[in-house]
Amino acid sequence: MGHDYQNRLARAAKEAAAANLDALVITPSPDLLYLIGYDAPLLERLTALIARASGSPLLIVPELERPRAAVSPAGKLLDIETWRDGEDPFDVVARVLSDGQRFGAADRMWAMHLLGFQRALPSSTFVLASVVMNRLRIRKDEGEVELLGRAGRSADDTFDVITREGLSGQREEAISRKLSELLVQNGCESAAFAIVGSGPNGASPHHEAGERTIESGDAVVLDFGGRVGGYCSDMTRTVSVGEPPAEKKEVHEIVRQAQEAAFQAVRPGVPAEEIDRAARRVISDAGYGDRFIHRIGHGIGLEEHEHPYIVEGNSEPLEPGMCFSIEPGIYLEGRFGVRIEDIVTVTEDGAVRLNNAPRELTVVT
Amino acid sequence: MGHDYQNRLARAAKEAAAANLDALVITPSPDLLYLIGYDAPLLERLTALIARASGSPLLIVPELERPRAAVSPAGKLLDIETWRDGEDPFDVVARVLSDGQRFGAADRMWAMHLLGFQRALPSSTFVLASVVMNRLRIRKDEGEVELLGRAGRSADDTFDVITREGLSGQREEAISRKLSELLVQNGCESAAFAIVGSGPNGASPHHEAGERTIESGDAVVLDFGGRVGGYCSDMTRTVSVGEPPAEKKEVHEIVRQAQEAAFQAVRPGVPAEEIDRAARRVISDAGYGDRFIHRIGHGIGLEEHEHPYIVEGNSEPLEPGMCFSIEPGIYLEGRFGVRIEDIVTVTEDGAVRLNNAPRELTVVT
Repeated sequence: MGHDYQNRLARAAKEAAAANLDALVITPSPDLLYLIGYDAPLLERLTALIARASGSPLLIVPELERPRAAVSPAGKLLDIETWRDGEDPFDVVARVLSDGQRFGAADRMWAMHLLGFQRALPSSTFVLASVVMNRLRIRKDEGEVELLGRAGRSADDTFDVITREGLSGQREEAISRKLSELLVQNGCESAAFAIVGSGPNGASPHHEAGERTIESGDAVVLDFGGRVGGYCSDMTRTVSVGEPPAEKKEVHEIVRQAQEAAFQAVRPGVPAEEIDRAARRVISDAGYGDRFIHRIGHGIGLEEHEHPYIVEGNSEPLEPGMCFSIEPGIYLEGRFGVRIEDIVTVTEDGAVRLNNAPRELTVVT
Repeated sequence: MGHDYQNRLARAAKEAAAANLDALVITPSPDLLYLIGYDAPLLERLTALIARASGSPLLIVPELERPRAAVSPAGKLLDIETWRDGEDPFDVVARVLSDGQRFGAADRMWAMHLLGFQRALPSSTFVLASVVMNRLRIRKDEGEVELLGRAGRSADDTFDVITREGLSGQREEAISRKLSELLVQNGCESAAFAIVGSGPNGASPHHEAGERTIESGDAVVLDFGGRVGGYCSDMTRTVSVGEPPAEKKEVHEIVRQAQEAAFQAVRPGVPAEEIDRAARRVISDAGYGDRFIHRIGHGIGLEEHEHPYIVEGNSEPLEPGMCFSIEPGIYLEGRFGVRIEDIVTVTEDGAVRLNNAPRELTVVT
């Protein structure tokens, strides 16, 4: 994708030194993809990038995956050490790393590997690599914003098709499959997820699309996203099957205003939690404060959810290049739910939305 | 799927006690699905099953996912505790678990959660939950073997269609997508992976399907699988596009004989490594010993790779109900590769294959 991995590795080394770490140890994860462009199989055999604060980086891979690693961008960036089935990969680890040091372990490293590192290097300290990786990943560069934008347009186009075709009489799981197919038809290399919460199921924010048949009169929460060049989209719209009664219109309008208030609050220097507060104020003033049961948003990039988390208690100031969701919701248990979500990117002047499907209540058949 | 989760939880508690563990802590993973049937989102918010050696099990989930957990089988099995965005989930952990104990952490638990547990319970010891989970999961029951068999038949049917339609003139990535689609059309709820290694790419065992166009004269390694009721298939066949020259026929026949020798060696009580040796002997005798660069196989179930690993150094005796792959290969760098893989289940008398696509060299257009 033309990412500058050499530069990313150099910055990681510098930031590791600044964080008083001797090295990062990065198993297959978005961090690995970000640093060296290697999309390694997520399996039990140890693959680990050793990115030292000073000294050359090194990639440890299983012998059978050496050719796969070698043809990835990683092949040109660093030396590859292998181990064979039947050998203990942590013998290689103990040989290439000194004990008694401080390491940053990938946030998504599996316990089977982290406990292996802790056993191989018993006098060392392990902290989360995100203390370093956030410094690199939290602000997206132009190329990354472009990929997030393409993923966002794919979600917009998907919403356009699904609402024109209508939902009534179909099962949630069928609509979920269709959203996934449309994301790929509209430019994503893969779908990441597709929540369809109809009627009372919409009050479950992370509802798993199931057997319920969507009926006239339902509000339906559609929350879906796919990947372009590894970068995710994540958009939510709540639609009404047939003309909505006054209450649903009203709740939808409160959520829309909360989403807009949060969007307007975004600008560099503002603490992340202020974005949450801006939306929460609108919803609380309307009397639904206790029905907005999650934070306003999460960062997005190579992960569906990543730093920065836009939540009460996070006073970290927003910076240009940060990309995150703004997704207020109101959930009325046993009845219905409404959520509206866009991805935004912070610019010098404020925020730009990477999703532009209509935020007004869309009525579908 | 009618799995007896109550019984699994009871066995887990008993085995945890036997392993001198106070509790298992299980984040979203195949272990969680196995124990309580809850397919939780794999994200940063902490979800954790606490399965105590004595005392009631408990599920910690984010507030917004309570309804999702409650409608899963877990909802009827145990109490659910929640935490809200902005709170520290490890405050709940510290409240419900005593420090100074021994815990088994899910093998796939993310470092961000494991380091959180270690910080919340600083005088406790964490080992891998697989010391307990293997006792439960390594021997499949009838229902599980039935699901693995259905996944296997789906792979057989997929191979039948793809070979009848032919490969020549198409890119690896197109064939990979097609294999994934066919798995779903043939009964899988999702595809898990689809390796297509054509010509020289076949010498990279975990090659990622790419832009290479398959040509007449190529040997093509097809290694693919999908899921039925969460249980995986994993089958490999190597086909020849057009009539193969003598050398490819010969290498294929050596691999076929090695696969058959390993299959014949399976019976209860035989050490796992003996299966590896049976295949390796055939390949070494034919002069290709150093080109068989991986173990003979891996267990399979809710994970593509799981215990038992069939590898030199694992002297664990085979037991009825174990299910694993038998997949010898010969890899000739820069030229071609051959691998043949079936999933087998151990019975009282020997092994039964869960894949039955032809193991003779299939010639395709």
